[in-house]
Amino acid sequence: MKSDLDRLMEERGFDALIVYGPAEGNAPLRYLSNGAKVTHATVVKKRGEQPVLVVGGMERDEAARSGLPIVLDTEFNFHQHYKDTGDRFETTLRMYVEMFEHFDLSGTVSFYGISSPGAALVFLTELGKRLPHVTLTGEATRSIFDEAGITKDADEIAALHTVAERTNAVMAETIAFIRSHAVEDEQLLKEDGTPLTVGDVKRQVRARLLYYGLEEAHDMIFAIGRDGGVPHSRGEENAPLELGKAIVFDLFPRDPVTGYFHDMTRTFSLGYAAEEVQHAYEQVMQAFNAVMDELAVGQPTARYQDLVCDIFEEHGHKTPRSEPGTTEGYVHSLGHGIGINLHESPTFREHSEDILAAGQVFTIEPGLYYPDKGFGIRVEDTIYIDPEGGIHSLTPTPKDLVIPIP
Amino acid sequence: MKSDLDRLMEERGFDALIVYGPAEGNAPLRYLSNGAKVTHATVVKKRGEQPVLVVGGMERDEAARSGLPIVLDTEFNFHQHYKDTGDRFETTLRMYVEMFEHFDLSGTVSFYGISSPGAALVFLTELGKRLPHVTLTGEATRSIFDEAGITKDADEIAALHTVAERTNAVMAETIAFIRSHAVEDEQLLKEDGTPLTVGDVKRQVRARLLYYGLEEAHDMIFAIGRDGGVPHSRGEENAPLELGKAIVFDLFPRDPVTGYFHDMTRTFSLGYAAEEVQHAYEQVMQAFNAVMDELAVGQPTARYQDLVCDIFEEHGHKTPRSEPGTTEGYVHSLGHGIGINLHESPTFREHSEDILAAGQVFTIEPGLYYPDKGFGIRVEDTIYIDPEGGIHSLTPTPKDLVIPIP
Repeated sequence: MKSDLDRLMEERGFDALIVYGPAEGNAPLRYLSNGAKVTHATVVKKRGEQPVLVVGGMERDEAARSGLPIVLDTEFNFHQHYKDTGDRFETTLRMYVEMFEHFDLSGTVSFYGISSPGAALVFLTELGKRLPHVTLTGEATRSIFDEAGITKDADEIAALHTVAERTNAVMAETIAFIRSHAVEDEQLLKEDGTPLTVGDVKRQVRARLLYYGLEEAHDMIFAIGRDGGVPHSRGEENAPLELGKAIVFDLFPRDPVTGYFHDMTRTFSLGYAAEEVQHAYEQVMQAFNAVMDELAVGQPTARYQDLVCDIFEEHGHKTPRSEPGTTEGYVHSLGHGIGINLHESPTFREHSEDILAAGQVFTIEPGLYYPDKGFGIRVEDTIYIDPEGGIHSLTPTPKDLVIPIP
Repeated sequence: MKSDLDRLMEERGFDALIVYGPAEGNAPLRYLSNGAKVTHATVVKKRGEQPVLVVGGMERDEAARSGLPIVLDTEFNFHQHYKDTGDRFETTLRMYVEMFEHFDLSGTVSFYGISSPGAALVFLTELGKRLPHVTLTGEATRSIFDEAGITKDADEIAALHTVAERTNAVMAETIAFIRSHAVEDEQLLKEDGTPLTVGDVKRQVRARLLYYGLEEAHDMIFAIGRDGGVPHSRGEENAPLELGKAIVFDLFPRDPVTGYFHDMTRTFSLGYAAEEVQHAYEQVMQAFNAVMDELAVGQPTARYQDLVCDIFEEHGHKTPRSEPGTTEGYVHSLGHGIGINLHESPTFREHSEDILAAGQVFTIEPGLYYPDKGFGIRVEDTIYIDPEGGIHSLTPTPKDLVIPIP
């Protein structure tokens, strides 16, 4: 959690962190600025000190919502440097040199946020030459923010609970919405007699997300039959909802106020299920329940991916362990941490080194995929480990394969 | 436009471009992949050749929508490298080395997309050591994508037209929605007798954006009185709508299908306007109209910022030219290009070197800001220059300051 940052900086030998870039998709900026809606900002955090938000004058009101100390970027004389040089790259370099002086930064400074990778390469390489007494660096794998974010503090857990409740409400309402339709020739029909489509359902879902103050930061998945067999296929807008076909509905909205996500998947079949689908569904639920029974603080996450591979391989399915890169059978890892990022640590991959701990929030989402047989199945809850090590699903929506159509 | 990329690569000495990173906020990825909704992808474009999309197997269906050739990242042996090294950083480096061989990349390769800046620094520095025959670089200022995107092709203009029409419809409907409320003691009231607030209006706007299939990629501004005097203040959720106060409504949604934005601002005052506001509004409209009368292909954009500073300074206001960094008077630049980014080239700053040309789409948005006097004013249209040099506003919504309340 956030309070771990100073300890992690010490462990990794960082004297300061700098986060820059636009706000969109900038999780470290959001994390440090407590959700203030600035469009562009730089955060400077020295070890043992509070982060400071550096913003343009136009952003000062929004920046104040962060509760952090604020420095206006006019401090660093953009206009003078630009007048002197006529060059934006050179101007930015000189402003950064001034900013390093202003904050008295020294030692090792590690950079985060959002940038074009090539732009970062040329900018930080050149800045490093201007600041020979400072080491500029970064983290290409598990960063200090990934590590801090792996456990959540009480404010974060509260935010995750409220987005969970609302997401489950939208899931339940969507199923009720689908069930409210008439059926003719195995198809669901709208009032005007035309087929209910994936696009219609998604529009309804979006209206309900809006009602609950949630946003669709990444497109939901509502995929029928073969489309559900390709895990990241979003579903065809014009596909009609038909009885007896497996529908994978993966919903992962964000609360725009807090920035936190929920992630849940249900697979259902309207009216009845094909025998093959029913059979595979039972195996997915067997895997899901086996994992839930075994989750415990102190256990390596990789163990659960192994457990699910054991179960699926016993049933004759390919897995990423038996056949790396397979696109049939069980084709992904078991879950992922969730918070201010939809996907974060801990990971539940075969080689993951993460260990379950109190304060973690993550998904468990086994699935089986047979696009050539025309179906996919995934069941996913978001799980929370409380400070006493208790395991809680934040996703109470029932897991019934067959949704009776009245 | 996109067809300029090969020429620009030649001019800048780039033999290949690589775009990587998550899709969210990744304009170059969206630009090159024609809007396909992959969550994570790498695009490799060699000079004179079509871009190629490199994706994981789970993304292959969405990737196919790009119409581009696709290579699955399993080609580069993630699993084998990970097995050999047990290290994700080393694995990624080895995959990239294989990818460079696969595409036979040589000469100078420039990187774009989304990354943590520090991660990009350490990754590309190390990759450069593994590929001594290739120069890895990037662009910290006006990039090749900025330069190509400054003019739009016919598909882009069509996308910008449709998002413009729908945004203007939402603006008109929002004004009608506000007008539908009863007034008591200078406040607008909802049916339950409580005051209509900024939050209520924003919820209505979001519902209408949804209806038109638009998304709020960045938060809209609906700011009353003093809040409108700080250009980037989003507005207080609980502020009631009152007669006679200037309201700045800046709406800039994105079409999630095409990825293109519209950007427009109207300032209005309900029922009547304060004399001071009326006076300042007339000066803003004088500046707006003066610019519109003068816009012409071949003119430097900086000229228009100058023109607006002339007008405002004549009226006794501070400007960024007379007082750099001012937070009172005219406090920003006149406009910005708009397309797959909300803010792109051309810029309309004092020192901008951009020249107006056919195919450009940009905003014109003069404003006056007096937070201490309790108001701000901004009027903004999105403008398109057609292939014959004709100047068109894509923002037909009327520019009346006073909205009569029936």
